[in-house]
Amino acid sequence: MPGVLRGAGVSPGVGFGPVRGIAGAVPEPAAGERHGGDADAENTLALAALEAVAADLEERGARAAEAGNADGQDVLNAQALMARDPGLADGVRGKIGDGTAAARAVFEAFGVYREMLAGAGDYLAARVTDLDDIRDRTIARLLGLPMPGVPESDEPFVLVARDLAPADTAVLDPAQVVAFVTEEGGPTSHTAIIARTMGVPAVVALPGATALADGTPVLVDGAAGTVRPDPSDAEVTAARAAAAARASALAEAAGPGATKDGHRVPLLANIGGPKDVEAALANGAEGVGLYRTEFLFLDRATPPSDAEQEEAYRKVLEAFPDGRVVVRTLDAGADKPLAFLPPPGEEPNPALGERGLRMVLRHPGVLSAQLRALARASAGTTAKLQVMAPMVTDAADAAFFARECGENGIETPGVMIEVPAAALRARDLASEVAFFSIGTNDLTQYACAADRQIGGLAHLQDPWQPAVLDLVAPAAAAGVPCGVCGEAAGDPALACVLVGLGVTSLSMSAPSLPPVRAALARHTLDQCRDAAAAARTGRTAMQARNNAREHLPGLDELGI
Amino acid sequence: MPGVLRGAGVSPGVGFGPVRGIAGAVPEPAAGERHGGDADAENTLALAALEAVAADLEERGARAAEAGNADGQDVLNAQALMARDPGLADGVRGKIGDGTAAARAVFEAFGVYREMLAGAGDYLAARVTDLDDIRDRTIARLLGLPMPGVPESDEPFVLVARDLAPADTAVLDPAQVVAFVTEEGGPTSHTAIIARTMGVPAVVALPGATALADGTPVLVDGAAGTVRPDPSDAEVTAARAAAAARASALAEAAGPGATKDGHRVPLLANIGGPKDVEAALANGAEGVGLYRTEFLFLDRATPPSDAEQEEAYRKVLEAFPDGRVVVRTLDAGADKPLAFLPPPGEEPNPALGERGLRMVLRHPGVLSAQLRALARASAGTTAKLQVMAPMVTDAADAAFFARECGENGIETPGVMIEVPAAALRARDLASEVAFFSIGTNDLTQYACAADRQIGGLAHLQDPWQPAVLDLVAPAAAAGVPCGVCGEAAGDPALACVLVGLGVTSLSMSAPSLPPVRAALARHTLDQCRDAAAAARTGRTAMQARNNAREHLPGLDELGI
Repeated sequence: MPGVLRGAGVSPGVGFGPVRGIAGAVPEPAAGERHGGDADAENTLALAALEAVAADLEERGARAAEAGNADGQDVLNAQALMARDPGLADGVRGKIGDGTAAARAVFEAFGVYREMLAGAGDYLAARVTDLDDIRDRTIARLLGLPMPGVPESDEPFVLVARDLAPADTAVLDPAQVVAFVTEEGGPTSHTAIIARTMGVPAVVALPGATALADGTPVLVDGAAGTVRPDPSDAEVTAARAAAAARASALAEAAGPGATKDGHRVPLLANIGGPKDVEAALANGAEGVGLYRTEFLFLDRATPPSDAEQEEAYRKVLEAFPDGRVVVRTLDAGADKPLAFLPPPGEEPNPALGERGLRMVLRHPGVLSAQLRALARASAGTTAKLQVMAPMVTDAADAAFFARECGENGIETPGVMIEVPAAALRARDLASEVAFFSIGTNDLTQYACAADRQIGGLAHLQDPWQPAVLDLVAPAAAAGVPCGVCGEAAGDPALACVLVGLGVTSLSMSAPSLPPVRAALARHTLDQCRDAAAAARTGRTAMQARNNAREHLPGLDELGI
Repeated sequence: MPGVLRGAGVSPGVGFGPVRGIAGAVPEPAAGERHGGDADAENTLALAALEAVAADLEERGARAAEAGNADGQDVLNAQALMARDPGLADGVRGKIGDGTAAARAVFEAFGVYREMLAGAGDYLAARVTDLDDIRDRTIARLLGLPMPGVPESDEPFVLVARDLAPADTAVLDPAQVVAFVTEEGGPTSHTAIIARTMGVPAVVALPGATALADGTPVLVDGAAGTVRPDPSDAEVTAARAAAAARASALAEAAGPGATKDGHRVPLLANIGGPKDVEAALANGAEGVGLYRTEFLFLDRATPPSDAEQEEAYRKVLEAFPDGRVVVRTLDAGADKPLAFLPPPGEEPNPALGERGLRMVLRHPGVLSAQLRALARASAGTTAKLQVMAPMVTDAADAAFFARECGENGIETPGVMIEVPAAALRARDLASEVAFFSIGTNDLTQYACAADRQIGGLAHLQDPWQPAVLDLVAPAAAAGVPCGVCGEAAGDPALACVLVGLGVTSLSMSAPSLPPVRAALARHTLDQCRDAAAAARTGRTAMQARNNAREHLPGLDELGI
């Protein structure tokens, strides 16, 4: 029996099924490759492959729409249009006419478009990826290679990949995918966040994951971070029983968030738009702790109208008549550029660039329009609206944002604490705004100078790093209410530690709410404080986690 | 009279001369542009342009070598070889034969090489830039456009650019350039560092700098950060007199670094190889506080031999028989990739990637070979050798490095403090190693999440940011000797503040040594401590600087 493989468990639960790998890159057809001489026949083959790819993209779009993912359909239909572009077909025909083989002709014809897009600036980079995807699918068809991207399957499977891109996951059917396993990625990678949002178990940063042969049955434990190839029936049964026991213990906890001794800690949901409200309510969210508003601004040529913004905000405010809704203003720029506000220049390190509030400082009109729309949306509703700015560095940033809020009718301005300097100088910032929300994902990334997107640095992207707790502590003690809305809030043990550090609310992906609610309900505030103090005596993330758990006995009862 | 323009002064001194701008990018010749019909004549033009560019590159190489810059000559000669590549000439001829105009043919022929290089991975990216430079120079010749890059001039001039790249500055003649003015860049940008190393006044982050018309006489004050177009004779005379008075006050200070009341603070030099030793000694360096060793490893296909390393280390150790030499082990990876150790994958944010010690963790043989060469070089010399690792994040990193040092004969292991987490947990790290050296450039970049390369964020890249001082303080108080080797150490006022925070040595570019020595000599340790405390009460970098200066009256006497 092969041994158990260990990675980082980033979404709990047990999944069992055969491995389906995402096929590797389609190789570039060799330059100079020529066809047999019949250019017309070759051209027919090429056009048929392009059309088949277009039809397949449309069909996947229709399925995405059925699954409620209308944005996904838009992207896929746009790709289908590109595949049917007459200029592209002309380019292919011309190259085949010169004797070039179909696959190579397709590669070269796409190359012309690719260069045009790439030359048009960063904000079309995402389109280059879409274009490459169509090209690779067409070449794969022509050469009889496996289709790149998420595999098709008639039975549920464990999806194995080097890493998952948003494009890969847009059309995933949660009923078909029983677990994710990736070689790259950390606890805050796209794969991890998608897995938790879908409620699918996931193990990331697993060395050698892509070497697992297609079809191998594997047992994935997303809590333990293990992957067991060819498990016995008894092992599968035992793992499923443990997961079921855990789920039933979690189901017992209900109602507002509080510690065992009644210290209230509102439990809120992170959402990316009105579409996420249903899952938040189903998991008992008391409100929204992070309403990301980028969906209104990205991938469009003009800014959203005031009415469109107002409606999107009101929908969420109305869903929580007795709760709070914390809206984060536009966090664009850098790696999330806006088509209608091109970036000021190329950024070698977008994560350290002009993103969030920094971009808005250049374009204050975007911010004031958003604030006014929020104020109008709030007017007829009873939810408590709070508005916060992303990527705030110092007291001057905080003062600017508070002033803009005041001038545009927002009463409760706050700031994200995600830059180490902001955490260190939290007292200075607290004198400018009414509340904080700590973004532990970025805070960890900057404190440890470790890109969230790189699997090899997963150990440094761990919010259990004692240095990160050292930054949470002054922010939580600065004198204003201080929530946490990073993925750390959704880790039941770390949630207890954060409460022990003085954090006043926790916001997370909806599926994380029940285990966090259960974990808090089983421990007193003093236990949380002891756990926090013990964690900070650790010298590594693992020591911090182990030290904290010694003070949190209720977690073992829950099997988490 | 036009008003005074204000930017960030990053290298002191006064420069006066006409503006010479670096010409903007050469535009891409339009696709489909065709020649008149005489392909042979068109091809002759193209080849002549390529040959002229090659000859010009060689001539610039010869001048660089005369100026003592042999590395610069190697780069330029390699470019000349590329311009004369027969395959490239064939490609141009083929396209001209199809009717394409010479400039467009050159563009397309280079495109083929460009794609090959780009496809060969990150570590050839620098070569792509070289290639583009040759292409642009050839096209500029063919189209009669101004030549890109540093302008030629018969009289001294003020060099104005959006930003300066290393390639631009490699061949600069310090006698010709009286000042640098750039629109982008911050205090730790390449422009700023080069300017200080050359001893040329510089103002960066000056909005609208590139709008200054060529030939306009400007007066640049690199201490005040001002640029005055069309100054009066009286203004030029007054500025020069002030600069001369300052220079003579500085010349008075000599001998080892110490405060007015005799608290010793060794003043050391940052060097990039044995070639920088002379300037360090000329400015009275007591040793080397940062010996960057990348020059031995970059731009070569195989690692340096043990003997080559040993010789380079011994040369510097022998230059300081009574001093210390602090060597930083290889800080490669990410944006400084090694040809013989390709990076593990593409990094979206190289500054947050697998650089420094993180890269060496994957390839420990590189580190142990370097440590052994250092131990051997030290054997016959009397300088005190200290060795430190870059990009250390936590106690586990520090313990790994100390163990490697111990196993390879290095007695005094240390770590750079440049990641916020390392500063926050300095006590944990201090129990593993013998000394710290704070890299304020990267520490500021990460603490404020602001890329050093972006001009628009210059205010956040300021080591006077109170949060940065908050990180220096625990590192300086952690119980081991703690130097500073970032550009902050070369700012006379900040140097006093750092000493007040408990920093035990300062290392900087050689030309910064005299003003720092003079500033320390005019203040007591208590004044430095008061200045440090006052700086930390500031809420912005400017407040911190102003608060500190109130306790450092000697700076005004020095005119700094």
